[in-house]
Amino acid sequence: MNSHGRWAHSAHPRRTSFRAGNAGLPSIDGDDARQQRPLQSPPSLDRILTDPSERLEFAATRRDFLRFLSLTGAAVAFGSCASASPFTIPVNDMKLHFYPYTLELKHTFTIATSSRTTTPDMMVQVEKDGITGYGEASMPPYLGESQDSARAFLEKVDLSAFPDPFQLEDVLRAIDQIMPGNPAAKAAVDIALHDWVGKKMGQPWYRIWGLDPAKTPVTSFTIGIDTKEVVRQKTKEAGIYKVLKVKLGRDTDKMMIETIREVTDTPVCVDVNQGWKDKTVALEMVEWLATKNIMFVEQPMPKEQIDDIAWLREKSPLPIIGDESVQRLPDVRKAWGVYDGINVKLMKCTGMREAYKMITLARALDMKVMLGCMTETSCAISAAAQLSPLVDWADLDGAVLIKNDLFSGATIVDGKVTLPDRPGIGVVPLK
Amino acid sequence: MNSHGRWAHSAHPRRTSFRAGNAGLPSIDGDDARQQRPLQSPPSLDRILTDPSERLEFAATRRDFLRFLSLTGAAVAFGSCASASPFTIPVNDMKLHFYPYTLELKHTFTIATSSRTTTPDMMVQVEKDGITGYGEASMPPYLGESQDSARAFLEKVDLSAFPDPFQLEDVLRAIDQIMPGNPAAKAAVDIALHDWVGKKMGQPWYRIWGLDPAKTPVTSFTIGIDTKEVVRQKTKEAGIYKVLKVKLGRDTDKMMIETIREVTDTPVCVDVNQGWKDKTVALEMVEWLATKNIMFVEQPMPKEQIDDIAWLREKSPLPIIGDESVQRLPDVRKAWGVYDGINVKLMKCTGMREAYKMITLARALDMKVMLGCMTETSCAISAAAQLSPLVDWADLDGAVLIKNDLFSGATIVDGKVTLPDRPGIGVVPLK
Repeated sequence: MNSHGRWAHSAHPRRTSFRAGNAGLPSIDGDDARQQRPLQSPPSLDRILTDPSERLEFAATRRDFLRFLSLTGAAVAFGSCASASPFTIPVNDMKLHFYPYTLELKHTFTIATSSRTTTPDMMVQVEKDGITGYGEASMPPYLGESQDSARAFLEKVDLSAFPDPFQLEDVLRAIDQIMPGNPAAKAAVDIALHDWVGKKMGQPWYRIWGLDPAKTPVTSFTIGIDTKEVVRQKTKEAGIYKVLKVKLGRDTDKMMIETIREVTDTPVCVDVNQGWKDKTVALEMVEWLATKNIMFVEQPMPKEQIDDIAWLREKSPLPIIGDESVQRLPDVRKAWGVYDGINVKLMKCTGMREAYKMITLARALDMKVMLGCMTETSCAISAAAQLSPLVDWADLDGAVLIKNDLFSGATIVDGKVTLPDRPGIGVVPLK
Repeated sequence: MNSHGRWAHSAHPRRTSFRAGNAGLPSIDGDDARQQRPLQSPPSLDRILTDPSERLEFAATRRDFLRFLSLTGAAVAFGSCASASPFTIPVNDMKLHFYPYTLELKHTFTIATSSRTTTPDMMVQVEKDGITGYGEASMPPYLGESQDSARAFLEKVDLSAFPDPFQLEDVLRAIDQIMPGNPAAKAAVDIALHDWVGKKMGQPWYRIWGLDPAKTPVTSFTIGIDTKEVVRQKTKEAGIYKVLKVKLGRDTDKMMIETIREVTDTPVCVDVNQGWKDKTVALEMVEWLATKNIMFVEQPMPKEQIDDIAWLREKSPLPIIGDESVQRLPDVRKAWGVYDGINVKLMKCTGMREAYKMITLARALDMKVMLGCMTETSCAISAAAQLSPLVDWADLDGAVLIKNDLFSGATIVDGKVTLPDRPGIGVVPLK
């Protein structure tokens, strides 16, 4: 059973009553994700407006999301969604709202290590000066975060304690230090703050960063591990994409590639998700892949096998890219000499600001850069897309893989990441 | 003889007639810098306004500078200062103006390798949409650039060829690729473009970068190599500064430090400017300095003696900082393991954008960062000051050391770098 249809609201952030049915590992029953329980009605607008400490959280369908937007918008106009902590003195009136959401995948998604049909997500909004910044935490369960952990983290974030939301260097460092881990929950706040600051400046982030929106890369489209028939079908459906990303790492690797090559000559990049354990077997696979118009191989072996990966990279005819090995900024320099490049994902690295630094560092170390994603709404995808003119390869198909997106924003036009000409991260809630 | 009193204007950038009397090595005669030749009158406003290809350049006193501002302002209003090249198609109407200027130093300035009383400089302006961005190239002769070389470079810069001045990543890369070298001339354009973009966004760069203006460091005040009497006098005059930067590298090193310590206990950092040649002697000096409340030692030996510097750093009780060794971004990773930190200067690294990347890289490599300057007007100092909340130490006294500043901008209040609350780099021409 998933969490749709539950809402909880709190008189105080630290005493929030919160229940998320799919916290932890979600069901992998393909039908279940579509079984929407009828909603309980959300709290009345009157109640929210008369209780200044009220905060609203509810698991949402798209319709509920729109209702949430209207409620928080109205509440903010009356200054009623205070997120002040009893331990700090508020010095600005920025509010933080968040609510759980469950992404429904179009296809059951299988990689080397797991399989699922939904992705737990947390939508975040910051509000100040009549401007709303949107953010999002996407939390595939195998990465260790959940709606419960995100809630626990976000309840500790008091944006009213910072003198100026523009001071992202200090604000985001302080948020990072609230507790270890929680990279997706931290990314949600980072994205929402970037959206707010960009809107306040009236500029999209690609423009603030000085980037050319015409220089976005093509994005790959991901094909998970599946049967020959499904792989063939997905490959045919991926016609607009100029690059395919294929998940390998089980005993069907050659079948996967050969099936795709029966359908198309489109360049393919390969993501093994640590699936190969033996370096000699890995090298044989890489050498075989090099004959199949493959662009690069991502995370071929477990991230702990550093010497094996460095050995493989020395001999490999294809570039070797680190993903699970490269979570945050300090991992980039450790990857230098082990990998040819890195895969930067907002949900791993705590958001846009650290991602920008990771890309800057990787470039200075002459490493390739790939920009990746989880299954996400167009909110986090559009945030990542702001950085995409800086990278070699993008894998930003996360919003295409879900059925219940909440935003319009960056799109994929003829396989190419296409940036909206709107300030901040450039998203607008879907009506 | 210096270049004051000459002006030249050009019908076309590539055929500019330009004469700068002090191109190349300037006179080190202390009186000469103050011998202003009477100015020839600049071209009449009528002439500029009726010749749309006219561009004005003249060596300036502050009064001439103000006249230049009013002329270019008027000219731009009539669209008459086109900088279009015959080799590119203009796609925007941004203009670039530049004119030589000679900084007059308050004191003869002596370091390990040279001595001078003036610094050749080139003022730069970009104009578009009624907004002026200011930039500056300061070119101490021993670094190899001159007003002639800057002019030759700036004549090749055609800002009208870029679709959007906001696209600093591409614009500055293209400008960097016009020809090798010329870091100060490139920095002048970088600073002017940053000033313009910041003004267009209505925000100071420290705010665009997400920095807290309260977190600026104190700046050191530089005391050059001189007689005991002069050093004593300068130390007494430096009372407001919380840190002194002392130039060493000749045979008077211990006298310099001892003289300062007779006057004050203020912390001192030491800049040897490659002056020590023997690593054993260098280590003895560093160990002696460590007993004198010294914070760090900058560029102790010639930059080519990498192994000797790494050896010294291993044994040194004080941090060793690279300056001449670290010019641009690729030098940062080469400095890793050789130096404890780097000295970033806009005039070495081509400007604010690359400086930001160098700081980001150095931080990711756990290196210390110092922000330095040449003798400069408050224009380039204010540009560097925007970055100063990111660094450990600042040495931004360049505008304090000259007699003929042209701008108000960042200031030094009680020894601390103090940022103006104005957009862009935050400078206003002095009236």
